[in-house]
Amino acid sequence: MMSKFTETRFGFAAESFEPTPASIPPVKQIFRLRTPPGLPVNLHPLNPLLFLLRCAQICPQKLALAHPDVEYPVFYSYAVWAQRIQNLAYALIMSGIQPGDRVAVIAPNSPLIADAHHGVLAARGVLTPINTRLTKHEVSYILQHSGAKIILVDHEYVHLVSDANARCIVSMDTGRVSDPYEDFLNEGRTFSAEKGWSGLDMELNEDSAATLCYTSGTTGRVNVLTVTIYPSDEDYWQPKGVLSTLRGSYLASIGNAFEARLDRNAVYLWILPMFHAAGWTFPWAITFAFASQITMRTVSNSLIWSHFKNFGVSHYCAAPTVQIGIINDPDAVRLPSPIMAIIAGSAPTAHLIGELEKKNILAVHVYGLTFTYGPFTRAYAQPSWEMLSLEERAKLMARQGHSFATAQEVRVVSFGDNDELIDVPADGKTVGEIVTRGNIVMKEYFRDERATQKAFRGGYFGSGDLAVMYPDGAIAIQDRSKDIIISGGENASSLAIEQELSTHPDILEVAVVARPHPRWGERPMAFVVLRPEKVRQWNKADNDFSESLKVFSRGRLPGFACPEWVQVVDELPKTSTGKILKTTLRGIVAKL
Amino acid sequence: MMSKFTETRFGFAAESFEPTPASIPPVKQIFRLRTPPGLPVNLHPLNPLLFLLRCAQICPQKLALAHPDVEYPVFYSYAVWAQRIQNLAYALIMSGIQPGDRVAVIAPNSPLIADAHHGVLAARGVLTPINTRLTKHEVSYILQHSGAKIILVDHEYVHLVSDANARCIVSMDTGRVSDPYEDFLNEGRTFSAEKGWSGLDMELNEDSAATLCYTSGTTGRVNVLTVTIYPSDEDYWQPKGVLSTLRGSYLASIGNAFEARLDRNAVYLWILPMFHAAGWTFPWAITFAFASQITMRTVSNSLIWSHFKNFGVSHYCAAPTVQIGIINDPDAVRLPSPIMAIIAGSAPTAHLIGELEKKNILAVHVYGLTFTYGPFTRAYAQPSWEMLSLEERAKLMARQGHSFATAQEVRVVSFGDNDELIDVPADGKTVGEIVTRGNIVMKEYFRDERATQKAFRGGYFGSGDLAVMYPDGAIAIQDRSKDIIISGGENASSLAIEQELSTHPDILEVAVVARPHPRWGERPMAFVVLRPEKVRQWNKADNDFSESLKVFSRGRLPGFACPEWVQVVDELPKTSTGKILKTTLRGIVAKL
Repeated sequence: MMSKFTETRFGFAAESFEPTPASIPPVKQIFRLRTPPGLPVNLHPLNPLLFLLRCAQICPQKLALAHPDVEYPVFYSYAVWAQRIQNLAYALIMSGIQPGDRVAVIAPNSPLIADAHHGVLAARGVLTPINTRLTKHEVSYILQHSGAKIILVDHEYVHLVSDANARCIVSMDTGRVSDPYEDFLNEGRTFSAEKGWSGLDMELNEDSAATLCYTSGTTGRVNVLTVTIYPSDEDYWQPKGVLSTLRGSYLASIGNAFEARLDRNAVYLWILPMFHAAGWTFPWAITFAFASQITMRTVSNSLIWSHFKNFGVSHYCAAPTVQIGIINDPDAVRLPSPIMAIIAGSAPTAHLIGELEKKNILAVHVYGLTFTYGPFTRAYAQPSWEMLSLEERAKLMARQGHSFATAQEVRVVSFGDNDELIDVPADGKTVGEIVTRGNIVMKEYFRDERATQKAFRGGYFGSGDLAVMYPDGAIAIQDRSKDIIISGGENASSLAIEQELSTHPDILEVAVVARPHPRWGERPMAFVVLRPEKVRQWNKADNDFSESLKVFSRGRLPGFACPEWVQVVDELPKTSTGKILKTTLRGIVAKL
Repeated sequence: MMSKFTETRFGFAAESFEPTPASIPPVKQIFRLRTPPGLPVNLHPLNPLLFLLRCAQICPQKLALAHPDVEYPVFYSYAVWAQRIQNLAYALIMSGIQPGDRVAVIAPNSPLIADAHHGVLAARGVLTPINTRLTKHEVSYILQHSGAKIILVDHEYVHLVSDANARCIVSMDTGRVSDPYEDFLNEGRTFSAEKGWSGLDMELNEDSAATLCYTSGTTGRVNVLTVTIYPSDEDYWQPKGVLSTLRGSYLASIGNAFEARLDRNAVYLWILPMFHAAGWTFPWAITFAFASQITMRTVSNSLIWSHFKNFGVSHYCAAPTVQIGIINDPDAVRLPSPIMAIIAGSAPTAHLIGELEKKNILAVHVYGLTFTYGPFTRAYAQPSWEMLSLEERAKLMARQGHSFATAQEVRVVSFGDNDELIDVPADGKTVGEIVTRGNIVMKEYFRDERATQKAFRGGYFGSGDLAVMYPDGAIAIQDRSKDIIISGGENASSLAIEQELSTHPDILEVAVVARPHPRWGERPMAFVVLRPEKVRQWNKADNDFSESLKVFSRGRLPGFACPEWVQVVDELPKTSTGKILKTTLRGIVAKL
């Protein structure tokens, strides 16, 4: 007997799952959107929705989406999933969504938000994913600023939108009849009158908006070269709407599929929150490659390992801090088949790369921002590096590298008097700002022309990240300006210090910030999380550990970069996406 | 000691090769074209030249191009090759090439034509590759029609352009100082005054022409549904200029890189002539993937096997007839690592697929035309097919399949009274014409508006190929209209008959055409090439073989499709690209 999903390993659970009646596609279908007349024969507007239609036609029985770790698990084949997305598109149109209207989604990684990445585009709406860890106040601000007409909301986050001025569709995340979201899809199916895909219009302008993602605090844009002090906390948390286009999303997702070597045999595990910069365009990269995806509402390391071991996971994206949790989980083993881990958010340390490799997890270090559709550079490994030690290799791998397959170019510059760009010398030393331009750059800040103009100074998008360029053209982030510690007149990179300290055998995680010093101006202070098995050893011996680490660092770092203070903590404060909240640490330091 | 090319297996030959002084790039370079002001920050015009600049920056020491089988072998790293291409661009500009001017190239697979695919684009010219097997008369027609201002010509083909009204640059294919082509490159380097890539303008309009490829006879467009008889031989050999765009070339080459799974470890062997539809965009697909390529002036099966065995070839493209030669070569063995063979031109038979697999060569069947940048559909193998017999699987694999990664859509239609397209039912039976549209379709017939309009009837490009659509949406060519044999009122597909007859154990190759029959109107006639080891067995026993084949086919084909006549021949007439010349066979039949 052949499994209903011939390409899945979920076995019985997937086989016995019955999608709702409205999710079952008709036998005869046309997998093409309505092409308005007048389009040149040699042109179809780029649109990442098109990938899904190919999946539905070419591999309808393949597992598209598994959501196994909930009370009501669901398993959708591409045929069924595409029908649900089509239903969603019609339901949105029926509810009054016009081309260009914003549709918000607030959900953990789950079918609801995965559907929305395709269904909202099919309705020619603009997807506005909202970070589930924001406060109600912040969510209200985003809903108001975006002017979202409809909110797709997971049951767990209904309280965040209780006073929203828009229609809310609640998903109970069951995929079963009587779930309000299923009712909505059902209405869409009824409304479509089986007109199918060809009842939906192709968007003719590929420069139209695809998503509107609001930046969280840590990615809040700061023009580091003009603003010398970091903005106040209020400004810091003021989210800005980053508008992406269909063309950019299409090209960025193809770039991601190619760089990550996604293919039909790939199984992508959602660890990165999909609400984060539209999941770095992976929702579409996965469909471009005919791959399968697994969503988990909450990230737990033991669950991750269960999927790694049992369900053939081949790819995931996550920040280094998340990866540290993964490799240190008690369930961690060496995997029989390699997994490709796309790492972004901050540079992986040598220790992390080494530990991942021991588990047969291959690190691909990419760098990107919400404004660049996620990744737009990659540290391309060179074959000659294989002869280097892990530490030497990791130092090269930790660089942000070169521009991505479908990105245009990355430069490290300072600005002249007339905003002209002056490239820093490619010497690996001179610090400038990372700028980029081209198809993998946002269209604009939504409803903020002034901020857009500022961000696009000199015809390039200014990232706000400070970096050097090496002679081989690779860029390496030195730190945001605030992360540079000015110690005795020398510029010490907190990133470089962290990189070195993390090689200490007892350290699990470390973050370094500047602390005022009467003599040197500033000196580094290190916040350290010890490895679980070392906690006992250093229990009530903080001073001893501190001394040991200082000795350790003196052999590896210049004097001005050695930590003057060491604080052992249970955990580091982090954002929802796993970035270390240095502002919180600075707050602690300020009170010392 | 590290090899100069750390990623090549050519060993000493490559190490000891010294490129000409003008090919050595300066140490400091900027890998970016001049971006004119005014371009939106979130846009860079798609252009396949950009891939080469990434290679030169990211993997400068990697082997880009090997041309080993000549008196003066050459081996270019990406750094050197990109410099040569830059020199070529400047030399063309210095010689008066303006944006949009045509530059012809007449060469076998060699560095000259590989360079031209990038260098002409860098000069914003339009590449016009010319089939080396054409007559002088035909070449003159193309040179005149295209209005080529400069001709890059290999020394072997100088006679074809002896009276051309344009400047000819002759390559002796040596890559050594004193070769006239090297002088030309040297002039370019001098002219550039080391302005480098940023002295060359980016083409702002991605819909600008990239290549102008003239169709040879066998791909001459015939609107089969309006023209019931095949055009006369004069019309047949009238070449038409197919104009492609930068945007289309960019997207088609990314599609090919992804579908063929090209990557940095790939080594592509040029068996397909590069002049054929701009090498199906593989000249750019290879650079998109940072892969290496090997050129051979002449295709010899023993040379092919030498490269397969010794130089890590991982990919090649070729028509089935060429593949038959490869698998039947005495040097053929099972390869330790799989090679991906991209097959187009006609459908591979079960026998061919099986024999390739025995050698560890994996067949990928694609379908395309000069008008579609080469491949635009692919027979996507389904995992469930693995349970089928080779013959059943091959039948499914022989279908032309579904539209390509970056193609828009493929339809099988008839035309209504007002040129509206009427899809045939997806029943695997009803025959219609294959049409397509979108980014992977030519821009126009150069200087032939009437033909363009005709080709773009109903807003789609009509391929002239007849096909059915199966319930799974896959298309399968039934034949060009002339290849349908109307036998006793039934439509017999010569392709289907060939497919069956090729499974006969004694047959190496077979072609079937219609022959007039007093009773049935037409009946199939088979031209057969025997396997070398079977020639003796059937020597002077043609009638016996003929009877044996008829008995064989009666068990497998309907009566009207069984060959009425069988002719054993030493070889089948073929075009330069390996397609069987059915017109020649029809000429033979007409004289019987």
